[in-house]
Amino acid sequence: MAWHVFIPDSILEETNDPKIRTYKVGQIARACAIFGVEHIWIYRAGGRDGRFIKTILEYMETPQYLRKRLFPLMPELRYVGVVPPLRTPHHKLRGKPKVGEIREGYAFRKGRKIYADIGLDELAIVEGNVEGRATFRIVSVRPLKVVPAKPEEYWGYRVHLTGKPLAKTLKKADLDLVIATSRRGRDVRYVKIPSLEGDVGFVFGSPRRGVMELLDEEYEFDLVLNTIPNQKTKTVRTEEALLATLAIFNLMRRD
Amino acid sequence: MAWHVFIPDSILEETNDPKIRTYKVGQIARACAIFGVEHIWIYRAGGRDGRFIKTILEYMETPQYLRKRLFPLMPELRYVGVVPPLRTPHHKLRGKPKVGEIREGYAFRKGRKIYADIGLDELAIVEGNVEGRATFRIVSVRPLKVVPAKPEEYWGYRVHLTGKPLAKTLKKADLDLVIATSRRGRDVRYVKIPSLEGDVGFVFGSPRRGVMELLDEEYEFDLVLNTIPNQKTKTVRTEEALLATLAIFNLMRRD
Repeated sequence: MAWHVFIPDSILEETNDPKIRTYKVGQIARACAIFGVEHIWIYRAGGRDGRFIKTILEYMETPQYLRKRLFPLMPELRYVGVVPPLRTPHHKLRGKPKVGEIREGYAFRKGRKIYADIGLDELAIVEGNVEGRATFRIVSVRPLKVVPAKPEEYWGYRVHLTGKPLAKTLKKADLDLVIATSRRGRDVRYVKIPSLEGDVGFVFGSPRRGVMELLDEEYEFDLVLNTIPNQKTKTVRTEEALLATLAIFNLMRRD
Repeated sequence: MAWHVFIPDSILEETNDPKIRTYKVGQIARACAIFGVEHIWIYRAGGRDGRFIKTILEYMETPQYLRKRLFPLMPELRYVGVVPPLRTPHHKLRGKPKVGEIREGYAFRKGRKIYADIGLDELAIVEGNVEGRATFRIVSVRPLKVVPAKPEEYWGYRVHLTGKPLAKTLKKADLDLVIATSRRGRDVRYVKIPSLEGDVGFVFGSPRRGVMELLDEEYEFDLVLNTIPNQKTKTVRTEEALLATLAIFNLMRRD
């Protein structure tokens, strides 16, 4: 089972302050990490911030020790220090290597061998043919050797900036269950939710335009739900709706 | 029924940036307003920010048109512009007065009469003996006259900075049901929640210390719940836990 979240590229349209813009994207990263979201899709909705949102989300998701290798200095990252870290299982601290441990790393060729930076004091020798960012298991400590491996716990999310509007983005994602959130949706308290299996998507609108308004062409959601019945504020921001919605559905998760 | 939220005066202990500190308090204001919280209690927990938190929360809660009257220029409010407005029912826009309309106002004596600023182009004559911030109903448009009134919908929250630690603050609040949130609490999915009636309190800890650690003396919570089972991040911040918890309990509300 994997959770997918869909947000428009216009979520920052009401926010001009660059520090707060960064912080808001950070909140989305945090919400997704808290609840184990594996894919964040940014769909086209007239916003200009798709690249920025993607960069911040990916930076946040990258283990601290790999950030310098993967992100050149760029103005978008100027305020990234204000966002609280994710502290997910794949953001491991430096420490003593242990055989069997799984760590995220960055692999590169050096002479005839491939080495990986896995956030320890020394580089690891890679047994296998992989380059770039990848997940590794430590198979030997002296010398430090790793093999490519599959994560065994929550290992962060991938970010997809499709450049396409919502319906096309959803088609591309090809999910088993798609739940849109909308103030005008059905009250979540009175709807029988199907069991959350396979790839499940949660779709959010922007502060100014709801999901139904942003939908550019025919698309049949499995459910359109109001997850904040009787809200007392006129609007709910995307990052607020995201955290609230994931908190509710987290209680129905059975994996 | 009224909801009460309890937060420690240490919620900002990990945040140095003044703009982000303001924004974080603003998020708490937003979460409380979205879900109709009527009382926010700030308890003593070794933090230094009780006053600051209270000021920002109260500023946010005050209708825009009364802010200049009630808040002098002060350094704490320097960054308050970054926080999104609450847009609750009591934050009314300027417009034409209507008989029967309820508006928040500020009443003051001028000569022999009492007038109220209710956010319209002219001051209203108050029929009744009230001064300071109060809620009014318009009883006449020409001349503009108001009487003190009770709100009929969600009308914001009150902030209580008790200067006392948690147990004493809870005793002072004198609630019907007190629910603490803790990562080590019982999984909310498997607990029968009593019906939420009367005054209900939700208690939160700080980023570094959970509710049970912050509890200074004997106190019997009605429930200690983990509202984010299987969280994937090592910690959940107070403002995140608050929004998630209120979102869940909002679905059990029946008023």
